[in-house]
Amino acid sequence: MADLVVPLETHRGLAEAAYRARGFTEAECAAAARFCERAAWHGNRTHNLIKALHLDDRFGSRHPVRPGCVPGARVERLSGRFPVAQRWIAHRKLGQAVAFDAMETAMALADAYGVGQVAVDRAFHYLWGGGYVLEAAKRGYVGYTHCTAALAEVVPFGGTKPTLGTNPHSIALPTQNAIGFPVLVDWATSAVAMGRVQSAKREGAALPPRAAVDEDGAETTDPQRVAALLPFGGHKGYGLGLINELTAALMGGSLPTLRSRPEAAPAEEKTTPNFFFQAIHPDALDCGDFACGRSRAENVRAVVEDILGPGNEDCLLPGQIEHEAAERSERAGGLIFSGAECEQLAEIGAACGHPIDVSAFRETSA
Amino acid sequence: MADLVVPLETHRGLAEAAYRARGFTEAECAAAARFCERAAWHGNRTHNLIKALHLDDRFGSRHPVRPGCVPGARVERLSGRFPVAQRWIAHRKLGQAVAFDAMETAMALADAYGVGQVAVDRAFHYLWGGGYVLEAAKRGYVGYTHCTAALAEVVPFGGTKPTLGTNPHSIALPTQNAIGFPVLVDWATSAVAMGRVQSAKREGAALPPRAAVDEDGAETTDPQRVAALLPFGGHKGYGLGLINELTAALMGGSLPTLRSRPEAAPAEEKTTPNFFFQAIHPDALDCGDFACGRSRAENVRAVVEDILGPGNEDCLLPGQIEHEAAERSERAGGLIFSGAECEQLAEIGAACGHPIDVSAFRETSA
Repeated sequence: MADLVVPLETHRGLAEAAYRARGFTEAECAAAARFCERAAWHGNRTHNLIKALHLDDRFGSRHPVRPGCVPGARVERLSGRFPVAQRWIAHRKLGQAVAFDAMETAMALADAYGVGQVAVDRAFHYLWGGGYVLEAAKRGYVGYTHCTAALAEVVPFGGTKPTLGTNPHSIALPTQNAIGFPVLVDWATSAVAMGRVQSAKREGAALPPRAAVDEDGAETTDPQRVAALLPFGGHKGYGLGLINELTAALMGGSLPTLRSRPEAAPAEEKTTPNFFFQAIHPDALDCGDFACGRSRAENVRAVVEDILGPGNEDCLLPGQIEHEAAERSERAGGLIFSGAECEQLAEIGAACGHPIDVSAFRETSA
Repeated sequence: MADLVVPLETHRGLAEAAYRARGFTEAECAAAARFCERAAWHGNRTHNLIKALHLDDRFGSRHPVRPGCVPGARVERLSGRFPVAQRWIAHRKLGQAVAFDAMETAMALADAYGVGQVAVDRAFHYLWGGGYVLEAAKRGYVGYTHCTAALAEVVPFGGTKPTLGTNPHSIALPTQNAIGFPVLVDWATSAVAMGRVQSAKREGAALPPRAAVDEDGAETTDPQRVAALLPFGGHKGYGLGLINELTAALMGGSLPTLRSRPEAAPAEEKTTPNFFFQAIHPDALDCGDFACGRSRAENVRAVVEDILGPGNEDCLLPGQIEHEAAERSERAGGLIFSGAECEQLAEIGAACGHPIDVSAFRETSA
């Protein structure tokens, strides 16, 4: 079955209705819809509307014991002596709304100071860090974010038990004037995502080596036996994942093994993730001294062409896959979902009293 | 043969004499000596005095065509509209002196603004990024640096030819009040260092898989056949190494394959590396809301204890090896070098008219 094209307005209406039905404010619904649209537009199938609502069911506003996400919550912006580095307590407000605001604030600070930073405590999962930094890069900034992931699923290098989140890092660079799109370096610090383990299970496929361990902490490639993930690149990925945990600990984040698990935590414990955002104005890096009379963009292009020179023509640049997916969405004139995904969108619509007609979606040849 | 203890004063006198003989100013000699002392104190054998001078021979002040390092050069601090983000043109001044100054400046900016940043163009190799950020962390800051490494030795993911530097990232976190030492995440973005290939050659040992390629770009574990290195962790390490190249390109850095190779470059090309430094004041992260009445340090300790809990007791923290080496230096009452290294130190002394007496160094039991 060919992929289907969901018109932007249809998708937006559905996303807003789904969040509205959960009690979120109009501004939160708009942020949630905008985020899911960005994710789907760039071909991200692990953080689209379907997954966002699944996350809200599991950890967010629908959590039966202590909801990780609170509709209508207000962000508390702490005052302090540092103009360039803001500290926010999000009080479990919708992650996408907080993250858009934080990235926007970091950019405004970067306009004034060259760099801007926002640290966020008591947050709720923001889904896909790449979405926020990609937008920053498209507006000309170096955008960076990292966060602590919902659950402790990753075993520290040399250990046997999962005590670290999959803790992603996302950085985007404003390279679009040079090469047509922003370079986007964006991934979890685990060797694979837990979603990959699930799909390997369904397909009866083996996992790559050094990606996961069983209950006893022994390495396994059998998805049926997987109890936890390993960091990518051994001690190096472990170190990168640890940065998120320790930065969060300096902010006010608490024990990783209790995160998003309020049912396991004492009442006085915090179980919320943390976010870190930075934006850098490119003029704050530019020393104005490019060789051979190149402009800044020409210099970036020359560097990229050097890297992808003879013998490396087949290399992808990070961010290229997202860029090509966006071009495909552009050609299709809407968001591309599989037939099975469209059925799930229809279920979402039915559940929130906002029915959508899947038969109206045309197939894409894009 | 047991390791020997080189007294700090002896090492400092030798390092300063060696740099003085190469025409460096007294301040540069002091920075060079201080840096090598820090490296040796923390057990770093790849960036000690011996390696620093080797680097200066090969790419630096002794390069026969276009010296990459110029004794007595003055750093040009550009003025601009951004108070928090400084841009420097180092004019090939000694890397260690520039890097110490840049890290210091970033910390002073962080005191005033919460975050401080310094971008450096036309630089010379600063040796070991970990040394600068470790000092920042010991003084209470989150310290971060990355740079473009001297040579393009790393093949982009999916390619066959080396066009990226080993481009390290170094970040240190002020965790000493919580766990006794700063966590230091500090490594090259290649799977192994070229030094490891050389030592595997000498020892007739095989390299790990996915670490290197031969002349044709085919993966090899035979050190005799190695022509270039692979990024660690596949596309993820590739992305991290690319960040250094592209940040450098925004600053004014030129083609990676020409870096440190002026003999291969047109006269109007730049062949110098770039540095990026940031310091963050911990109060700029602290949202003042730690669970269970913990202080910030207690919270960091609780997080680390959670991560290294049951099943993970044998895990090392990044920075622990450097910390234990420093404790060993402390116990020994000086810098620990092998007998062979001490012979090399004696050769350095003889070459610069500052003889040292290796027989005076006592063996260490530390």
